[in-house]
Amino acid sequence: TVAAPVLAQGGPAISWRLASSFPKTLDTIYGSAERFTRRVAELTGGKFVIRQFAAGEIVPGLQVMDAVQAGTVEIGHTASYYYFGKDPTFAFDCAVPFGLTSRQQTAWVDQGGGRELLRDFFKGHGLINLMAGNTGTQMGGWFRKEIKTVADLKGLKFRIAGFAGRTMERMGVVPQQIPGGDVYAALEKGTIDAAEWVGPYDDEKLGLVKVAPHYYAPGWWEAGPQLSLYVNIKEWEKLPKEYKAAIEAASFECHVAMQAEYDARNPAALARLIKNGAKLHTFSKEIMDASFKHATDIMEEEAGRNAAFRKIYEPWKRFRNDQNQWASVAEAPMQNFLISAGRK
Amino acid sequence: TVAAPVLAQGGPAISWRLASSFPKTLDTIYGSAERFTRRVAELTGGKFVIRQFAAGEIVPGLQVMDAVQAGTVEIGHTASYYYFGKDPTFAFDCAVPFGLTSRQQTAWVDQGGGRELLRDFFKGHGLINLMAGNTGTQMGGWFRKEIKTVADLKGLKFRIAGFAGRTMERMGVVPQQIPGGDVYAALEKGTIDAAEWVGPYDDEKLGLVKVAPHYYAPGWWEAGPQLSLYVNIKEWEKLPKEYKAAIEAASFECHVAMQAEYDARNPAALARLIKNGAKLHTFSKEIMDASFKHATDIMEEEAGRNAAFRKIYEPWKRFRNDQNQWASVAEAPMQNFLISAGRK
Repeated sequence: TVAAPVLAQGGPAISWRLASSFPKTLDTIYGSAERFTRRVAELTGGKFVIRQFAAGEIVPGLQVMDAVQAGTVEIGHTASYYYFGKDPTFAFDCAVPFGLTSRQQTAWVDQGGGRELLRDFFKGHGLINLMAGNTGTQMGGWFRKEIKTVADLKGLKFRIAGFAGRTMERMGVVPQQIPGGDVYAALEKGTIDAAEWVGPYDDEKLGLVKVAPHYYAPGWWEAGPQLSLYVNIKEWEKLPKEYKAAIEAASFECHVAMQAEYDARNPAALARLIKNGAKLHTFSKEIMDASFKHATDIMEEEAGRNAAFRKIYEPWKRFRNDQNQWASVAEAPMQNFLISAGRK
Repeated sequence: TVAAPVLAQGGPAISWRLASSFPKTLDTIYGSAERFTRRVAELTGGKFVIRQFAAGEIVPGLQVMDAVQAGTVEIGHTASYYYFGKDPTFAFDCAVPFGLTSRQQTAWVDQGGGRELLRDFFKGHGLINLMAGNTGTQMGGWFRKEIKTVADLKGLKFRIAGFAGRTMERMGVVPQQIPGGDVYAALEKGTIDAAEWVGPYDDEKLGLVKVAPHYYAPGWWEAGPQLSLYVNIKEWEKLPKEYKAAIEAASFECHVAMQAEYDARNPAALARLIKNGAKLHTFSKEIMDASFKHATDIMEEEAGRNAAFRKIYEPWKRFRNDQNQWASVAEAPMQNFLISAGRK
């Protein structure tokens, strides 16, 4: 071991802009990306600086991927299922209904062949993808009235998008697209019947408990939604290899930190919500079974007509089935026992 | 953005040795540490080189922490519960019976106050601790005969150590300490009745299915055992800050990769084991309940007499209880539904 002299870092000064799809109020998501940019700077002796911009500061939140592809910004932090409308295949890098849990998604991407499949797909869109966070299983949203049967879903105006909206439509739900800022008033007036967001920690800030107190779980359309960093592939290729390594290594820290922060913050937020009137429910078996059937049909139909989707879906499906079988042996019995023991 | 010139890395050349507690045959654990050392080298332009040594190459596997403390090596990769005999407080950095799952442990360390509590404890032992992997809930081991009731445990010679051994003793088990290489022969001859190791992927290599086919789950003494890197604190303080950052960032990658690799590899290994005669069982509710009671008693007793243990145990216990309550709302119902849907 040698004593360390003052480090004279020899890398080039590089300045990038990161567009986030999220507002600063989503501090768990936004903050984990700050941890990423801070770490990249530290790793490069302050030479590689990535400035982060919230949704709307450079581009609207739902156009982050487009901005990275166009080179407006070099890197973006977003959720791939926002781009479901371009091609449902994008959703595999985030979540599809009844998809992988947080841990399973990470296993699939890092060690189950997922990264290779996704890199190949995103390369065709001019992007390099990196895992950068997960929320864990989300909540199923806030409902003005109890929903017990599939019949109760008929005509329900639910603020929900993408794959989940398509699945819900088959059960008679009328998916609604309204801006986030209008959700509270729409629920209060009854213009919509339900809305879903994330989980207790983020949901609490919206105050929906006052206007739609029935709080359902689980959000089966987001068993383990992953957030990602997308880098413009031409900018990526210009980087020295140490800077590529800095982005890769720091993305793992961001990935760990976001899930950890959600896990650490959700329990107290849920307790406060319940104290403030939230009525906690689990979706009935009838609703879960019907949702699973329709979601599976939609995935299979998409696989039938979309070669890019099919190429990922088939190995993904095998991975998911194997994971759930293995989870049934040790992990789930352990978690279920810990839950029941904790109730005593 | 600037085009990147050839990088002239300005950091000092530093060479460290990493002692692993594990043999190369545990390729999931050993390999994730290789990913750590490789990433550190990449991040520092090849200037900070950490050479890894398997158990026994420099020091025996169970003396890795001592070797780091003594400065024989600068860094070690080990499981803190191996040092349970010095002080049971060490175990919180790995696993205690009915402790945190993999995701909960990560949340506790990174965002739940765990890192601060553990850093304070390890600092007193001359070490800096970093999370560096997890196996997920382990299996409960291989048994020559079925074990249905607490009465069946009486007199059972079980190769198991530490906290788990102490808990088992209260139910009449006789914990055995025999070298890993002798386990197969001891089970074959009936010198011991049962042995536990890790999970399907690692267990398969030992071939115990042939001599003790009853394969139990869950390993309640290891709900989510964490592996850690320990750095000699004096060596740590000599590092330039970019090299400290490299160790920290690379440790997150190692942490993600190990759990992901276990998750990805266990399902196929379990299928092969079952094909080769493994009889899968879940510990009975009677055994789980009794084990939980004894484990809780032992933790409380230790907290009563050991201030270092108590200082971590009290906030840890609150964190665990909150986590399990939250898990019962969304994550566990989702996982349980996915398991049941996959069986159809």
